[in-house]
Amino acid sequence: MNAQIITLDTIRDAAARIAPHAHVTPLLNSRSIDAITGATLLFKAEHLQRVGAFKFRGACNAVWSLDDETARRGVVTHSSGNHGAALALAARTRGITAHVVVPEDAVKSKVAAIEAYGATLHYCAPTMAARDATAERLQRETGAELVHPYKDPRVIAGQGTAALELLTQSGGVDVLVTPVGGGGLTSGCAIAAHGLDPQIKVFAAEPEGAADTYESLRQGRHVTDMVPNTIADGLRANIGAINYDLMRQHLAGVLVVSEEEMIAAMRLVWQRMKQVIEPSSATVLAAVLRYREHFAGKRVGLVVSGGNVDLDRLPWVA
Amino acid sequence: MNAQIITLDTIRDAAARIAPHAHVTPLLNSRSIDAITGATLLFKAEHLQRVGAFKFRGACNAVWSLDDETARRGVVTHSSGNHGAALALAARTRGITAHVVVPEDAVKSKVAAIEAYGATLHYCAPTMAARDATAERLQRETGAELVHPYKDPRVIAGQGTAALELLTQSGGVDVLVTPVGGGGLTSGCAIAAHGLDPQIKVFAAEPEGAADTYESLRQGRHVTDMVPNTIADGLRANIGAINYDLMRQHLAGVLVVSEEEMIAAMRLVWQRMKQVIEPSSATVLAAVLRYREHFAGKRVGLVVSGGNVDLDRLPWVA
Repeated sequence: MNAQIITLDTIRDAAARIAPHAHVTPLLNSRSIDAITGATLLFKAEHLQRVGAFKFRGACNAVWSLDDETARRGVVTHSSGNHGAALALAARTRGITAHVVVPEDAVKSKVAAIEAYGATLHYCAPTMAARDATAERLQRETGAELVHPYKDPRVIAGQGTAALELLTQSGGVDVLVTPVGGGGLTSGCAIAAHGLDPQIKVFAAEPEGAADTYESLRQGRHVTDMVPNTIADGLRANIGAINYDLMRQHLAGVLVVSEEEMIAAMRLVWQRMKQVIEPSSATVLAAVLRYREHFAGKRVGLVVSGGNVDLDRLPWVA
Repeated sequence: MNAQIITLDTIRDAAARIAPHAHVTPLLNSRSIDAITGATLLFKAEHLQRVGAFKFRGACNAVWSLDDETARRGVVTHSSGNHGAALALAARTRGITAHVVVPEDAVKSKVAAIEAYGATLHYCAPTMAARDATAERLQRETGAELVHPYKDPRVIAGQGTAALELLTQSGGVDVLVTPVGGGGLTSGCAIAAHGLDPQIKVFAAEPEGAADTYESLRQGRHVTDMVPNTIADGLRANIGAINYDLMRQHLAGVLVVSEEEMIAAMRLVWQRMKQVIEPSSATVLAAVLRYREHFAGKRVGLVVSGGNVDLDRLPWVA
């Protein structure tokens, strides 16, 4: 797939396409966290997006990009997380079927959420091979369109609308930071940011325990075999090839943060901003706190990726 | 003190007085909670107010109502909770001293917060008599002005600005619900609401374990001797005489909720709205869920009182 097909115009089209369905999430700020960091932080509140995560943008753009005949056959993906829920709800907005492949050992509450949004669930063995095979079989049998969580250009363009909104609402920033997992959010947002203002420095924030983006850029080759070990369940994927290409082209750097830094940043946002954000989302503030030299005195846009967290088990009450 | 001195105009004056210092907090809504309740709920997000609670409005109005000579002698109150923090910060905005009397057994983290906002702390024995005596002594010795947390008309008028904003932002509601503790918020908001639209039904939501407002209105006399037993630490006070008079005049009813209902409502807001609200704040949604007959099909304004909660001890993880 050619990374160059995604442009600022593609992202603007995506924004128009999802406008009837997605929320324009607010930009939040905190005087006290600004004082702590010495920067002006603008938090794009995607935890307030539908399904509680930015993932709805990409899924919604993919679903509404389909022609009627394709759409009628439904969509399929494999995900036991926010993308599964997002595709289920996006399909519902169009009145079509979403097939979601989930591993047998997936967390029950997350699978229940995906089902509650109306998806048809398909269980498979808990291996990547089984997930791929099951998704492929469903494509063959039903004619459903595959919507990959982060490699699909329609998904990448959809995620880019978060930065498009952020930059419009903020009137511009010096630096933009997004969490990086598979790379859909980061690459889409980087294209939007540089399309509007090539001077913006775009950083990705990544947990040390899932630092395949950091390693890929450091080694100059697409690292695909890292085994993640982090509580940030939204950031465990290895980046896709298209995402790697886009990130090589756009990123000023990848900022790795420890689990402790991520948890402390998450707690700080809950305490000072009164916002429930998930560990993945906290990577961006953790990066600002750790790498002050990139942010001091700057206007910084931060994409808060989601707020779906297990309220019965908080990471600081371990 | 005469309750009639507080009018819509007094509250409008308070709004103008605090405007340079207080946040205009947003109105939040939730599709999924609307679906659960069958009503249109508009949450006035005072957990996003400065110091994390509506209390800043009243304290700020009191501090900025003082003439220069009085202000120079400072202000004094007794409170180990949100009012103490609010008065400390309000005093700081005017560059004057806030004396805050706290009982020796107060929660350390709360006292630390009050101190961090710049208050001068005065410890006393953990009895109401000792608190009153210490505050009176400080008034005598320093000439500081007493700012009572809920009986002071300047405080009541300040709290009323929350409803004034809510009604302006919402374009009107059928019903308004506020939590009730000492009664400053409820009485101020009721005056604002009925000043703008006498048709609005104003309810107070109160924990069963601190139902002195409910009992006062039921028995037709000011009940002042209830010993509170509730996790809603912001609602443990018995209402003041001025507050009782105002509530008799304005309230459509007091809706009591159990601890379990309050905790469930708090969890629902965290989960669906991604907002960190304290137990006191959850009484209003708990009331809407329990007394559906008052709310179904209506536009309902809910004042979320605050978001200062101990993140290390969540009430549903007992």
